[in-house]
Amino acid sequence: MKNTFGQHLTITLYGESHGRAIGAILDGVAPGIPVDEELISHWLNLRKPHGAISTARKEADEFSIDSGVFNGYTTGTPIAIRIENRSQISKDYSELATSARPGHADYAAYCKYHGYADYRGGGHFSGRVTAALCAAGAIIISALKAKEIRIGTHIKQLGCVCDRGFENYAEDISVLENKLFPALNTQAEEAMQAEILAAKEKLDSVGGILETVVLGMPGGIGEPYFDSLESSLAHAMFSIGGIKGVEFGEGFGMAGLLGSQANDAFRVENGAIVTATNHNGGINGGISNGMPILFRCAVKPTPSIAQKQQTVDFVAKENKDLEIHGRHDPCIVHRARAVVDCLTAITLADALVGRFGTDWLSPEAGK
Amino acid sequence: MKNTFGQHLTITLYGESHGRAIGAILDGVAPGIPVDEELISHWLNLRKPHGAISTARKEADEFSIDSGVFNGYTTGTPIAIRIENRSQISKDYSELATSARPGHADYAAYCKYHGYADYRGGGHFSGRVTAALCAAGAIIISALKAKEIRIGTHIKQLGCVCDRGFENYAEDISVLENKLFPALNTQAEEAMQAEILAAKEKLDSVGGILETVVLGMPGGIGEPYFDSLESSLAHAMFSIGGIKGVEFGEGFGMAGLLGSQANDAFRVENGAIVTATNHNGGINGGISNGMPILFRCAVKPTPSIAQKQQTVDFVAKENKDLEIHGRHDPCIVHRARAVVDCLTAITLADALVGRFGTDWLSPEAGK
Amino acid sequence: MKNTFGQHLTITLYGESHGRAIGAILDGVAPGIPVDEELISHWLNLRKPHGAISTARKEADEFSIDSGVFNGYTTGTPIAIRIENRSQISKDYSELATSARPGHADYAAYCKYHGYADYRGGGHFSGRVTAALCAAGAIIISALKAKEIRIGTHIKQLGCVCDRGFENYAEDISVLENKLFPALNTQAEEAMQAEILAAKEKLDSVGGILETVVLGMPGGIGEPYFDSLESSLAHAMFSIGGIKGVEFGEGFGMAGLLGSQANDAFRVENGAIVTATNHNGGINGGISNGMPILFRCAVKPTPSIAQKQQTVDFVAKENKDLEIHGRHDPCIVHRARAVVDCLTAITLADALVGRFGTDWLSPEAGK
Amino acid sequence: MKNTFGQHLTITLYGESHGRAIGAILDGVAPGIPVDEELISHWLNLRKPHGAISTARKEADEFSIDSGVFNGYTTGTPIAIRIENRSQISKDYSELATSARPGHADYAAYCKYHGYADYRGGGHFSGRVTAALCAAGAIIISALKAKEIRIGTHIKQLGCVCDRGFENYAEDISVLENKLFPALNTQAEEAMQAEILAAKEKLDSVGGILETVVLGMPGGIGEPYFDSLESSLAHAMFSIGGIKGVEFGEGFGMAGLLGSQANDAFRVENGAIVTATNHNGGINGGISNGMPILFRCAVKPTPSIAQKQQTVDFVAKENKDLEIHGRHDPCIVHRARAVVDCLTAITLADALVGRFGTDWLSPEAGK
Repeated sequence: MKNTFGQHLTITLYGESHGRAIGAILDGVAPGIPVDEELISHWLNLRKPHGAISTARKEADEFSIDSGVFNGYTTGTPIAIRIENRSQISKDYSELATSARPGHADYAAYCKYHGYADYRGGGHFSGRVTAALCAAGAIIISALKAKEIRIGTHIKQLGCVCDRGFENYAEDISVLENKLFPALNTQAEEAMQAEILAAKEKLDSVGGILETVVLGMPGGIGEPYFDSLESSLAHAMFSIGGIKGVEFGEGFGMAGLLGSQANDAFRVENGAIVTATNHNGGINGGISNGMPILFRCAVKPTPSIAQKQQTVDFVAKENKDLEIHGRHDPCIVHRARAVVDCLTAITLADALVGRFGTDWLSPEAGK
Repeated sequence: MKNTFGQHLTITLYGESHGRAIGAILDGVAPGIPVDEELISHWLNLRKPHGAISTARKEADEFSIDSGVFNGYTTGTPIAIRIENRSQISKDYSELATSARPGHADYAAYCKYHGYADYRGGGHFSGRVTAALCAAGAIIISALKAKEIRIGTHIKQLGCVCDRGFENYAEDISVLENKLFPALNTQAEEAMQAEILAAKEKLDSVGGILETVVLGMPGGIGEPYFDSLESSLAHAMFSIGGIKGVEFGEGFGMAGLLGSQANDAFRVENGAIVTATNHNGGINGGISNGMPILFRCAVKPTPSIAQKQQTVDFVAKENKDLEIHGRHDPCIVHRARAVVDCLTAITLADALVGRFGTDWLSPEAGK
Repeated sequence: MKNTFGQHLTITLYGESHGRAIGAILDGVAPGIPVDEELISHWLNLRKPHGAISTARKEADEFSIDSGVFNGYTTGTPIAIRIENRSQISKDYSELATSARPGHADYAAYCKYHGYADYRGGGHFSGRVTAALCAAGAIIISALKAKEIRIGTHIKQLGCVCDRGFENYAEDISVLENKLFPALNTQAEEAMQAEILAAKEKLDSVGGILETVVLGMPGGIGEPYFDSLESSLAHAMFSIGGIKGVEFGEGFGMAGLLGSQANDAFRVENGAIVTATNHNGGINGGISNGMPILFRCAVKPTPSIAQKQQTVDFVAKENKDLEIHGRHDPCIVHRARAVVDCLTAITLADALVGRFGTDWLSPEAGK
Repeated sequence: MKNTFGQHLTITLYGESHGRAIGAILDGVAPGIPVDEELISHWLNLRKPHGAISTARKEADEFSIDSGVFNGYTTGTPIAIRIENRSQISKDYSELATSARPGHADYAAYCKYHGYADYRGGGHFSGRVTAALCAAGAIIISALKAKEIRIGTHIKQLGCVCDRGFENYAEDISVLENKLFPALNTQAEEAMQAEILAAKEKLDSVGGILETVVLGMPGGIGEPYFDSLESSLAHAMFSIGGIKGVEFGEGFGMAGLLGSQANDAFRVENGAIVTATNHNGGINGGISNGMPILFRCAVKPTPSIAQKQQTVDFVAKENKDLEIHGRHDPCIVHRARAVVDCLTAITLADALVGRFGTDWLSPEAGK
């Protein structure tokens, strides 16, 4: 469905980097969910560029809720959130209209849109549109939290630096929610930022791996054969620009394990059924088993680098060199965290609402 | 959509391991595509268990095409393919009705289906249903081939053994199409099979990694924001039982690269726009760029192992030990290959037909 | 989605009149619903041709449930029902391959399928495929009945003969469930059948109007803006071959009413909110209001008539005369009743399950 | 999909009568289509209230295109159109919060949204949101016109007054495009307006029937079994507030015809295949046959009338009397015309793009 995602609870995105506004429409959200505008601002802030490790383009990200919220609560009808673009720099983008920036969508988009796409600042392919996604997702994150479903993401790896793994999920999530740079280990955090600044110095960029945990997901969610929970989450994650890999539990590490090592023994603990290990990341046969959902996303280094690069003019079909000037992120891994969290929330809420009905997401449900 | 996948060209799957029949419905297929029953049998055979490295359950996989094919050509209406189950062994499965086999869907399914699911032989979660998927996919593989789009998958890694990478894509694909055990290097092939037999000996199982290439995919295919080509392919792959990771191009390796290393320089070559490297796996910004599509799927070791394992009776909520007896695969990596190829074909055909219209898949189109 | 209908609980249809088999896949059905094969046979029988007023083609309609039902209950996974075609008469259909029978889909289908469609007996456009629909629908009708939602349809008009209107909905529904020819007034019933036989005598056919009531539908069902309950039901009804009009409540009669006549006053009655009249057919603003849902479908006279008719050979693009010989229905209004009931059940169940969750349809839900 | 409609080319609607803004997102529109803002204003004007026969609420309907249009052409990415609400009158709506206006969605919406919906001015159920629909539809109407597909709607009946039928489709469409009150016969036009004023005088309202023709629709469009062209169009039409009946060709009149009267004879005329009559409204078996598409929509009298009416307080569950004061339309038939035209355009464009591919809608396609 192109720019609409979900089956029961859906999000529709629109906007370009240098257009008038970007926005998101959430549909299928239960009535009666409190909407806290400060919380939306909080998630927008987690996504925003901060400091020397990010782009110099600073957007106010002032949003207006155009519909679907009344007296502070969701109405049950579509929630439209809109953010005007204000910090575009008017400059001559005409070279980019026909130059394929390596690693970027320019040429692929040209094959698709025949040169009509708005190329300024990456257009619809810009990370800018994820601001609207985060504003919408913040509402859902908050609704899930009221149902005791919590989501947290940290930078597991950035360049050559690794963070510690999750230790106490609940505590770690609480810490991450309030960190602009989501690493769990302070030394790793500093080393990662140094890595980013070093890359920036060299007019280069770095990639990394985000690791996400979801606590409180009930068992029985996921719709085989084709809408396994892994399918839905991976579908969502791979829509985020720059994500090139997604794995659940041991993921690619599974290749080197024996079945006797990979299987998670079931146990009864305090009357509840749990697994002794969680190599399967909380999902068996595409369905949640009640354990924490665990997955990782590989984020490629930002393709926008200021070094001279070889490329083509795709209209003239000629080789050329290109130097990209502008306000670019030497790393988007830390900023992508908010997008991963928000889109995870929307994806899981969609699955939960499909299973338990529209009203389930409301704090009133089940009372 | 649960057991239906795709938006323009769709597949619907049904069936259980020990039910009367399994089947697939293909809808949205152009009229006028030749249907070669031998070719369907060929792909069913690639998926079948062969020799000591696979389960002893040997199904005839005799299929009937119940609709949608007339005089040897697709009609344009739904193609229903049905395969009767014949080799079920009637035995007492009652223990499995309430035992959660570690690594299997039993307990997650119980949370979802409340004990009504057909538990015999894994029921709807059995790999058995992929036979119908392969029968359907074979028609699409063949139609894509007529449009010069070709798909090939090899076992990149099995346990600790690695295959060589793709060298000449076209030649390698031709070789793989006719190999029951899809490794490119003969020594690796032997070592992999030895690995499987060793695991079997220990009543254990092994996992691996499949690597797939798609040749001939035109640029401009993929529907951002949410239906990137990576999203669609990953959605499909993660619906296959046992797949726990999917990555494109360098995938998780992207985390350790700089932008200057990860970016693929565009070049004009013989009048065509290509990239000098293909770290992005033929996809930029979620859209194909005309280069070979390259992705890898991590397959976990088969959870059905004959060793004694700790688990629970999920109805009684009691710990117990379990020994699974029966006809199991010590490895499904090589058999999963056909499923990956067939589902890749269906996924790409759906995207292509959405872009170019229903008739495009027909060999008559564009004439 | 072409041959798949529904968003939460879906039906997929396949098959041609003279193909090997027709079938239906129901997906998204809650586990734990009892499946009574006699009840399926009952609804198949209501759809079957009986006596001189119908076609001479008598199909056994023996169905097999290939998946999704275990120990007499739905499993929660796809339910596949298949009916083999047995009473096809092998004759030379080659004239029909290029002749456009007036009022039939032949020429429109040629524009779409370019001559590859199976033309024998109408192929996929044959009313034959509705047998599979009824088999599937019978399961849902029964599940809704267990939730006290009941559906009944009578022939309001056939040619120039009108039936009495509904008087006591519950009683009328009970009567209709067991009538092969669903008229409420005995005299009207006889006059209608005489009308059919008179048309048959003249090698002609007659049309009519079906009127459907749904009792017990809870308020609050329907998804504006675009999935109003009227939209969903009309979408379903207009997929049935030969339906050319659908109206709710006063329907087209609304054009001649004033607002003060058309509005239904709300009243409190025995503690429940009801309307004094039901001109809106139980739906306001696209959402059920708790009153009986009431709608009518116009059925055109069967286009297959044995009189000589003017038409064209659409391949040769030449005028010609055509006499259709074979086993045709002089009227399908009474047979369409079962299809309307079954498809109404599926459509409403889909809306209800979307609203209240997957399990809602199970008799166990809410206990 | 609730507030999103379509499968290939989709529209998403949001907004409430007294919220900040209403809007529409069009997705799946080909790149390269010229966007003429004056033409959008023209269609907004056709929908606007004019003169004494309509509500006194006059909205400027100033729209902004927030995305998807660049340099005057569609980009191929989502087109977001937004219209701010400006003419809301701040008054005390609190009585309406719990009063069920007869014929309105208030009570049904309460069953669905549990009292959280924005009740001011009808909220999301207000005809107001159709302004956004018309703005979006105008772009598609214009694109279809460039492909020689034209749509026109007139008031066939209003209260007791009937317009003449279509005579010369192309000329009639041209006339209607520029008429605020879309009747073809001048005397009928005057009589209809008198009927509206008479109803208004009596604090009452009137309904009517709209008749639509589509010229230039190619044969072969429609997706049986479930997405017949009638299904798609009826689905769309029944989402418009106040539509209670939809019929194609002879529609309900089919009930009184014999097959020999209802069948349309095919003929070859100037080398093209046509039908001598068009009782089937250009659709056979759910697929267009190349003849003009013809359908009618029954519009109920506006439920908002100023007479005292019986109703209930649905929270207190008490009977009460209600007098609705405010700015209401005594008739919406003429204003609904623009909505019918615009939504017809979107629905057909969706079907065409599904059949012929994304680019087909562009004026460049096929060159």
